[in-house]
Amino acid sequence: MFEKLYIIKIGGNIIDDPSRLTAFLEELAHLPGKKILVHGGGKLATKVAEGMGIQQQMVAGRRITDAETLKIVTMVYAGYINKNIVAQLQQFGCNAMGVTGADANCILAHKRVGQAIDYGFVGDVDMVNTAAFHVWLNQVDLLVVAPITHDQKGLLLNTNADTMAQEIATAMSRLYDTSLIFSFEKAGVLLNADDETTVIPVITPAYYETLKAEQKVFAGMIPKLDNAFAAVSKGVSRVIIGKAEQLNLLTRSMAGTTIQSA
Amino acid sequence: MFEKLYIIKIGGNIIDDPSRLTAFLEELAHLPGKKILVHGGGKLATKVAEGMGIQQQMVAGRRITDAETLKIVTMVYAGYINKNIVAQLQQFGCNAMGVTGADANCILAHKRVGQAIDYGFVGDVDMVNTAAFHVWLNQVDLLVVAPITHDQKGLLLNTNADTMAQEIATAMSRLYDTSLIFSFEKAGVLLNADDETTVIPVITPAYYETLKAEQKVFAGMIPKLDNAFAAVSKGVSRVIIGKAEQLNLLTRSMAGTTIQSA
Repeated sequence: MFEKLYIIKIGGNIIDDPSRLTAFLEELAHLPGKKILVHGGGKLATKVAEGMGIQQQMVAGRRITDAETLKIVTMVYAGYINKNIVAQLQQFGCNAMGVTGADANCILAHKRVGQAIDYGFVGDVDMVNTAAFHVWLNQVDLLVVAPITHDQKGLLLNTNADTMAQEIATAMSRLYDTSLIFSFEKAGVLLNADDETTVIPVITPAYYETLKAEQKVFAGMIPKLDNAFAAVSKGVSRVIIGKAEQLNLLTRSMAGTTIQSA
Repeated sequence: MFEKLYIIKIGGNIIDDPSRLTAFLEELAHLPGKKILVHGGGKLATKVAEGMGIQQQMVAGRRITDAETLKIVTMVYAGYINKNIVAQLQQFGCNAMGVTGADANCILAHKRVGQAIDYGFVGDVDMVNTAAFHVWLNQVDLLVVAPITHDQKGLLLNTNADTMAQEIATAMSRLYDTSLIFSFEKAGVLLNADDETTVIPVITPAYYETLKAEQKVFAGMIPKLDNAFAAVSKGVSRVIIGKAEQLNLLTRSMAGTTIQSA
């Protein structure tokens, strides 16, 4: 019987809202069991870039990480957001520590090349060092992971936080009974994007194909669901998508959308 | 017989110079034994603050850390500088990880109050969690510490990097045979500040008093020497001040200025 481990991704809209973030972190701090929080970036990186006069290029809603933008996301994600989350968790009696993929070589990646769009300094994950995470999980109550990886050649890389959470969950599922929770501002995957009461309780691969064909899911939800299905198909016990404010219910599969392998 | 541990402080002028920093990190990566690197800030924090239109207040050469400046030093020290040092060390085959005092509650501090000058969000160290450092030193080859602490009430604090290095060295000297090395751009404590050949090989407390009375040491060197004497008087085996480029010689007491307790 493996020990339980929760990998929780928190989305940018919550990070941008200090009072919602604090409420979320207080609930997270009191959640029993071993936990890894993966955070995204929020709007602060864009604000800092604007302040410094660095033009942000966006393609299809995704940021192009040029050299100057890489500096800023490293500052904002690994510095400001990560360490403020750690300090707040400490305040709530939860002994936390924050890492990037470069620390203890815990997430090795390579710069994405040969795509139609050059996203710049973006890293695709090659390896999650489960031994490093295992040491930390025995040392502290909660790990806070910023979505920055490295290539072991001196280069830091920007990696999508949903993907980061999925890769960590998949790797750790060899050592723990792992649940992956994508928490964000919505109550789950919605049948009608404007109606919070239309949460789909369960999505199977076949139903996912139907939802895509009927264009009921689109845009940012598709990469999130692709990551969710990748996780369940590679050994993660439970994958749930839902509202950050319902974290406790999500961990008990009593809210949100559950992703099932079949 | 305790195991050897080197606590190395690297100064801001080296951090501001990418090629010197890389050369220093390559030498550090190949230094045998357990190591903790404490880095200062350099000029990047000032540059980012200027870029964002945040006025920097300096009093007697020291930065006043107001709320906006605290955000920036957290971004720059804990994010950009710390993670780039870690990524570079990984490149040189040295498994490094970076932390602040908030991580695993490893350095607890309180906001300095009741002084003639209000330096803002500046932390005076109350406790170094030697158990946390001990776990990390068994996990990786080298720890990289950013000069940010916390008060366990949710507040991050800016702490002088020389003081941080001294506090860590003093605490760790209970578990290790600890050497503290203050490395910077000069060859040691100089009798004539403009002449690199006038390195003072050894300073005792009595000689330090003479040097101060004769105004041979002044300005930034005095807090550094005060930290150095605090360390030797509280159990650190060796304290040496010298040139970053001579790191290997410094660790073998073959260069720089040695601080002696008597």
